[in-house]
Amino acid sequence: MSDVKGLELRTTVDADGWLTLDLAEVTHAAPADDELLVRVEAAPINPSDLGLLLGPADVSTLEEIGGGDRPALRFRIPPARLASVRARLGQSLPAGNEGAGTVIAAGAQGQDLIGRKVGMIGGAMFAEYRTIKRRDAVPLPEGASAADGAAMFVNPLTALAFVETTRREGHKAIVHTAAASNLGQMLQKICLADGIPLINIVRSAEQAAILREIGATHVLNSKDDDFRTRLADACAETGATIGFDAIGGGTLGSDILHAMEQAANRTAAAYSRYGSDTFKQLYIYGALDTAPTTLNRLAFGFQWSVSGFLLFPWLQKAGAEVVARMRQRIVDELTTTFASRYTATIGLREALTPDVLRAYERKATGEKYLIDPTR
Amino acid sequence: MSDVKGLELRTTVDADGWLTLDLAEVTHAAPADDELLVRVEAAPINPSDLGLLLGPADVSTLEEIGGGDRPALRFRIPPARLASVRARLGQSLPAGNEGAGTVIAAGAQGQDLIGRKVGMIGGAMFAEYRTIKRRDAVPLPEGASAADGAAMFVNPLTALAFVETTRREGHKAIVHTAAASNLGQMLQKICLADGIPLINIVRSAEQAAILREIGATHVLNSKDDDFRTRLADACAETGATIGFDAIGGGTLGSDILHAMEQAANRTAAAYSRYGSDTFKQLYIYGALDTAPTTLNRLAFGFQWSVSGFLLFPWLQKAGAEVVARMRQRIVDELTTTFASRYTATIGLREALTPDVLRAYERKATGEKYLIDPTR
Repeated sequence: MSDVKGLELRTTVDADGWLTLDLAEVTHAAPADDELLVRVEAAPINPSDLGLLLGPADVSTLEEIGGGDRPALRFRIPPARLASVRARLGQSLPAGNEGAGTVIAAGAQGQDLIGRKVGMIGGAMFAEYRTIKRRDAVPLPEGASAADGAAMFVNPLTALAFVETTRREGHKAIVHTAAASNLGQMLQKICLADGIPLINIVRSAEQAAILREIGATHVLNSKDDDFRTRLADACAETGATIGFDAIGGGTLGSDILHAMEQAANRTAAAYSRYGSDTFKQLYIYGALDTAPTTLNRLAFGFQWSVSGFLLFPWLQKAGAEVVARMRQRIVDELTTTFASRYTATIGLREALTPDVLRAYERKATGEKYLIDPTR
Repeated sequence: MSDVKGLELRTTVDADGWLTLDLAEVTHAAPADDELLVRVEAAPINPSDLGLLLGPADVSTLEEIGGGDRPALRFRIPPARLASVRARLGQSLPAGNEGAGTVIAAGAQGQDLIGRKVGMIGGAMFAEYRTIKRRDAVPLPEGASAADGAAMFVNPLTALAFVETTRREGHKAIVHTAAASNLGQMLQKICLADGIPLINIVRSAEQAAILREIGATHVLNSKDDDFRTRLADACAETGATIGFDAIGGGTLGSDILHAMEQAANRTAAAYSRYGSDTFKQLYIYGALDTAPTTLNRLAFGFQWSVSGFLLFPWLQKAGAEVVARMRQRIVDELTTTFASRYTATIGLREALTPDVLRAYERKATGEKYLIDPTR
């Protein structure tokens, strides 16, 4: 085949504190033996993508600097936060963790996939074309659209990793925050299927309704006055001692550990000033709130751990067999358990228009945008 | 033998928010087969003992309510903090985790120990006599005094547990806070003997001098202007990725994780907005600052864990063989590696006089009080 040229969304931070989003033209040569060349037809904007796209930029400072066929935007990064992106200064970085599309060329090991739709993981998916290793693509089941397969890695694998972690570390039930997200809905479906009690924490009645509709029984609104009491009650009822927190900032994580501790103390035989002997684990896997995490640890003793949770290192540690089992379940349940809902589908250039950007960067729970670079 | 009566220091919180310290007369019957009756001659006041003795009481509200032969003190607990001690309301609790003394009577399994000095662990050591299981007492080596053996459990086992944890979890070097404490000095001596680099964080030049005197090479004063830079430098030089923090409150723990991350990024190949792939572990084992723990987690990515560390559950998990090995090392090095220095020795009644109490409750690093109930 001859070289294929396509646009790719790029994010760049310069030393003066500007973050620029623009489109770069990239040339794709014929794929190597173990590679596929895929026309990207769908790629979700995940919160984790926004972290790379916009970094610590102040979105209110948005300026249009391109136009027409080559839109471009730039933003100021507050001086105090520039140090946090020092390592990426001057680098034009592609974005988009995952996506799906049609294989238009393949090396020797991928000939069977030409013309097939595949889901892909590995970055640089906000692009018209993606050259990718065969092993990082999964053929979609018959009848599935690119939109169906666009988000088949990050959220589904994360939800399954939560359940796997819960089992491995010996917990009986889970607390989850920002629980009405696409990820949260998948987690609820998995927990229902696998018989693991799940306590969902949301921030509005609308979000609670989304979860109840798919069968959730424990749904708590953190804005309710009696939230903390009800959380402790739910922990006591289910025995939840592990939490997964997408928010990170503030005291919610601490409140969860406190509720677990209160639940444990309801059955404790004797007073210990070191707290209960029930081990409580909180994983922080997101940063919807970038404020510091505040731990009122005197409220939950010494038997606890708060840890960062990051999918890819987790998968690496879990090993190929576990990951293969997860991937198979995702393919089998692609349009049921692992179905994603999108608020809107936008084109690659549209993603760089001010109103659209402001809409998708709001990170409203339950809202999610899909980029279709063929539009 | 006939029953022996002795005084025992007690701490009680009542529902009105008073915390009372007084002396109770306790009767000791003849020891059972697996028990010893020990005349307590030395018991250190550890920070962990103060937590039980004084709880969340406001020491500035001290009132004398006893006198003469039966001194007693009481304190107000701020209403907001009363809930944290709800579980101990109305209970008259003994205190003193560890101590040493002379065996004055024994059951069948302890006849060989009558007249010997032993170190003991298990609470209620701030007392004239202690009935204790044979297995919770260790005979002191020939020539060792009760003061030598009074603190042979908590600090020595904790310091050894830190080193054991460091090795097991695959770390190369350690960061330690409040490092000039008796525990910190033991840890430095162990690390020197075992070839593990140790970064000591202290708060004064005097504390730094204590550590340098016993051979410490990395000693940083957290009050110095360039503290954070020097901490990152020390982490880079030693490869430290595990920290043990006695302070808990504030941002020092977060600063330690940040320094480890900065050190890791000095050798990182490519930018990752999720931070380095170097796993960083912080254990909080004390609460010298009871303020909340503030984690500026954006400064150290997603590969980290902050956990409570509590000695007794750790020992239980480590198993009898490991604990036996540790105990043997402590006996072998009782007056060298594991020597404790005391600021003053006080009697049981003296511990309940206002000026003395104010002195030992200050928790000044490097200061430690020893109770000798025979005085």
